Amino acid sequence: MAEATLKPKEALVWSLENYVVVKIKGGKLIRGKLKGFDVHLNLTLSGAQQILEDGQFKSLGDVIIRGDVVVFVVFPALQYKGEQ
Amino acid sequence: MAEATLKPKEALVWSLENYVVVKIKGGKLIRGKLKGFDVHLNLTLSGAQQILEDGQFKSLGDVIIRGDVVVFVVFPALQYKGEQ
Amino acid sequence: MAEATLKPKEALVWSLENYVVVKIKGGKLIRGKLKGFDVHLNLTLSGAQQILEDGQFKSLGDVIIRGDVVVFVVFPALQYKGEQ
Amino acid sequence: MAEATLKPKEALVWSLENYVVVKIKGGKLIRGKLKGFDVHLNLTLSGAQQILEDGQFKSLGDVIIRGDVVVFVVFPALQYKGEQ
Amino acid sequence: MAEATLKPKEALVWSLENYVVVKIKGGKLIRGKLKGFDVHLNLTLSGAQQILEDGQFKSLGDVIIRGDVVVFVVFPALQYKGEQ
Amino acid sequence: MAEATLKPKEALVWSLENYVVVKIKGGKLIRGKLKGFDVHLNLTLSGAQQILEDGQFKSLGDVIIRGDVVVFVVFPALQYKGEQ
Amino acid sequence: MAEATLKPKEALVWSLENYVVVKIKGGKLIRGKLKGFDVHLNLTLSGAQQILEDGQFKSLGDVIIRGDVVVFVVFPALQYKGEQ
Repeated sequence: MAEATLKPKEALVWSLENYVVVKIKGGKLIRGKLKGFDVHLNLTLSGAQQILEDGQFKSLGDVIIRGDVVVFVVFPALQYKGEQ
Repeated sequence: MAEATLKPKEALVWSLENYVVVKIKGGKLIRGKLKGFDVHLNLTLSGAQQILEDGQFKSLGDVIIRGDVVVFVVFPALQYKGEQ
Repeated sequence: MAEATLKPKEALVWSLENYVVVKIKGGKLIRGKLKGFDVHLNLTLSGAQQILEDGQFKSLGDVIIRGDVVVFVVFPALQYKGEQ
Repeated sequence: MAEATLKPKEALVWSLENYVVVKIKGGKLIRGKLKGFDVHLNLTLSGAQQILEDGQFKSLGDVIIRGDVVVFVVFPALQYKGEQ
Repeated sequence: MAEATLKPKEALVWSLENYVVVKIKGGKLIRGKLKGFDVHLNLTLSGAQQILEDGQFKSLGDVIIRGDVVVFVVFPALQYKGEQ
Repeated sequence: MAEATLKPKEALVWSLENYVVVKIKGGKLIRGKLKGFDVHLNLTLSGAQQILEDGQFKSLGDVIIRGDVVVFVVFPALQYKGEQ
Repeated sequence: MAEATLKPKEALVWSLENYVVVKIKGGKLIRGKLKGFDVHLNLTLSGAQQILEDGQFKSLGDVIIRGDVVVFVVFPALQYKGEQ
């Protein structure tokens, strides 16, 4: 996968069942295990936690995040495999 | 359902007739029993209550929340079954 | 209708000729008799009144509310029949 | 027309050649004779006047208002016929 | 054309090669000769000038205004013919 | 081309390989040579420079500007040929 | 490629596996290697870093940036080849 392109949708498939961090409009960061997504970039996360500014976590539970409020999604999988 | 993916729409089907908490743009939290939804993520909630900042509830009645104002939907069902 | 799902469109059909309260972006509340709607959630209300913050009403007349500015619609019908 | 539904588009057809008041995003009120509209709720008004906060009018001329900025349209016709 | 409806698109066709004033989001007023438009209400103006708050003009040149930022378009043609 | 209409897309075709000034939401002005565009009014500019408020330039390089943030595009070609 | 047009999508294809700088709504700058994109201008970046105002970098990891929040994308490839 080193030089192959990775479309956004492929990156989400790759990230299923892994933890992602979602930045949403307004600045909040939400971390959770990616359970599913759809073409609108609506995301289902389980065990979601809001990451507070002081680094603490606030538990949200299982959430559906609407794609329209997503700024970016950090998916840590690639770097854990030493690829950049 | 432990390792299967759960698309946002599937999470909503799963949540029908259960209580969900909806965060809407501007920050308000609304809790109610999910009675229905559509492809735009418009939601029908019965017995909806706005959760005020001091933890109190303000009764709204039965509401249709327009999908476009939804930030996220917390659906507690999965965690109640011990799955994360 | 107790346990059946109630999609947003069905909730609007159910509410026709009844009074609804519409919260619009920016915070205003408008109450009126629902005379019609379309797929964009554009709403026709007759005898519409803006509910002011002090609980007073300000008459608007008959209005078309554009769906894009709707936050939520409170439809009181279900609870009046003792269903929640 | 007493109990029949009145979809938003029907309300606009009903209002053609009559004066309407359009509330646009940002709060301005514009009054004019409705000359036409399209599916996006773009509106053509002739003799349009902006209603200032002190109740004065400021003449705009003939205008096309883009549907996307419309909050609501007050159409006075129904109440003038004693129907609500 | 006295009593005929005038859809927004027809009003733009009517205004081709005439001066229009375009109000854009944020409040700016731009005046220019309408050279063309498309279904998104994107507008081509030649000899466009921004109308400053003190009534002065600031020359912009020939511009394409994106429809999405248009609030309204004043087209003076109808009133110059004594029709309202 | 004196009296012919010039649709927005035609104005962009006309401007290819010429310098345009793009006003984007938030007020920034970006100048560059128009290298391409698409139906969403996404624009490719080479040698792009941000025009600062003091009239200085800040080099950006080659950029893709997303159509959704475009307010207007100034295309100087027509006036240089004495046409208005 | 000197005088050929370069549509936004072609500029993105050209930039694959190269570093781009993405300006997002709200003003943040994110730099990373472009790994993929889709028709909505959603972008996959590996090794993404937020460029802070003091010129420092803050590592984000591998990210999907949603197209809707993109203001512009700086792709340095063309200028490095002496073309403008």
